[in-house]
Amino acid sequence: MAVKALVFDTFGTVVDWRGSIIEEGRVWGKEKGIQVDWARFADRWRAGYAPAMEKVRKGELPWTKLDDLHRMLLEDLLKEFHIEGLSEAEKDHWNRVWHRLKPWPDSVAGLTRLKKKYVIAPLSNGNVALLNNMAKHAGLPWDLILSAELAHHYKPDREAYLTAVDLLGLKPEETMMCAAHSGDLRAAHGFGLRTGFIHRPNEYGPTRQADKASKGEFDAVAGDMIELASLLGA
Amino acid sequence: MAVKALVFDTFGTVVDWRGSIIEEGRVWGKEKGIQVDWARFADRWRAGYAPAMEKVRKGELPWTKLDDLHRMLLEDLLKEFHIEGLSEAEKDHWNRVWHRLKPWPDSVAGLTRLKKKYVIAPLSNGNVALLNNMAKHAGLPWDLILSAELAHHYKPDREAYLTAVDLLGLKPEETMMCAAHSGDLRAAHGFGLRTGFIHRPNEYGPTRQADKASKGEFDAVAGDMIELASLLGA
Repeated sequence: MAVKALVFDTFGTVVDWRGSIIEEGRVWGKEKGIQVDWARFADRWRAGYAPAMEKVRKGELPWTKLDDLHRMLLEDLLKEFHIEGLSEAEKDHWNRVWHRLKPWPDSVAGLTRLKKKYVIAPLSNGNVALLNNMAKHAGLPWDLILSAELAHHYKPDREAYLTAVDLLGLKPEETMMCAAHSGDLRAAHGFGLRTGFIHRPNEYGPTRQADKASKGEFDAVAGDMIELASLLGA
Repeated sequence: MAVKALVFDTFGTVVDWRGSIIEEGRVWGKEKGIQVDWARFADRWRAGYAPAMEKVRKGELPWTKLDDLHRMLLEDLLKEFHIEGLSEAEKDHWNRVWHRLKPWPDSVAGLTRLKKKYVIAPLSNGNVALLNNMAKHAGLPWDLILSAELAHHYKPDREAYLTAVDLLGLKPEETMMCAAHSGDLRAAHGFGLRTGFIHRPNEYGPTRQADKASKGEFDAVAGDMIELASLLGA
C-alpha cells in the first residue's frame, strides 16, 4: 500500500519553537526594558504544555484550544518571571508568538518538494488558526491544515491520528506521520500509520538531548526535511 | 471590523460541476460505447444533492460524507440511465468525478490575488478529501480546507458556518462567505458573516437561470473572481 499523504508534527519538527521565542523575547525585552532569561522562559512555557493537555485528556478541563492552554500557562509564567503591567493586547500578542514560529532552514524547501508527490498537512496539537497563521507567516506550503482540534483529542490519543486519516479519505497505512519525536511516531505506528523520523538535534537547545533514531527504527529516518524528500522519492 | 478570511462555496462558485461532468462523461461514454445525454446525467446527479443532504439534516441518515451521498445517488442514476455492468473500481472512479471538477477560467487567478491579502478556504458541503483532491487537481491555492464535514452539518445549517469561523479563530464579521448562490449568502449573513456574491451565469447550462444579485444586495457583488479581488483591494 503506497503512502499518499504525509502529516507533520510542527513544534520542533517543522518550526524552531525555542529559538523563535528566545529571539522574539530578546527584541521585545529590550524595547520594554525587561531583563529575562528568554531561553529559560521558552523552556518553562514548553514544559507546561504536556501537563496542560493531560488535564484535557483526563477531563479536568473541557476541550480547550492550544491557544487557550498557552494563555493559561503564560499567565503563570508572567508571575514566575515577574513581568508585570502588560495590557490585554500585549498578552495576546505575546501568546501568539506560537503563530509566528520560524521554520528550520530546510523545512520550506523540503515540504515544497514533498508537496509535488504527496498531500502534505500538519497534524499538530496546535489549533487550526494557530497552524494556519504559522503557515502564512512562515510560508509553509500545506495542502490543508489538520489538527488535534478537529478530533477534540490531543496527540498521542488515537482519535487525533485516526480523525486525520478519515478526513483525508485514506487508510492509516496510506498516511505517514512525520515527526522529530519518537513517542508521537510510536503512537501513530500503533494506530496503523507509517512513520517518518526527522532528526532535530537543536530543538531543546544546547543542554538537553533531542530524540534520535537509528535506520530501520521507523519507515523513514532522515536528518532533515530535504533528506526525507529524497528518501520518499519526491 | 475588517474582513480577514474569505470562505468559498465551491460547486458552481469556484468550479464548473456541470461542464466538467458533461466533458468527462462524453469521453468516458465514447470509450465504453455508452450513449447518454450527459447534460441530463449531470443535472439529475446534482438534483439529488439537496434531498440527500435533507435526509441527513432530518436525521433519516446519520452524518454521511458527500462522497457517500454522491455514491448513493450514482447507484440510482446508473439504473435510470440504463448503464450496466460497471465494476466497483469504475463506479468509484466515476463517483470521484466530483474530485476532478474544473475551475472557472478566472478562479485560480482570482484566488491567487485574494490569497495575498486574505486567508482563503473553501467552505463547501463537499467533504475534506473531495475538496483537497479537487484543489490538487485544479491548482486551487487554498490556505486550508474548511468543510461542512468539520461541523457534521451541511450548509445552510448554522453550525456549518460558525464552526468554520471558530476554527479560523475569527469573529463572524471578520469572515466573508463568497458564493454564486443567494441562499448560501443569506444564511451566512443571518449568522453574522460578511457576504460576497460571484455571478456564474452558466452554472446550470443554457436553459436554467443562475442567481443574480444587484449592487448593494451583498457586501460585495462581482461578475467573477478577478472582479471580487479588485473589489476587496487584493
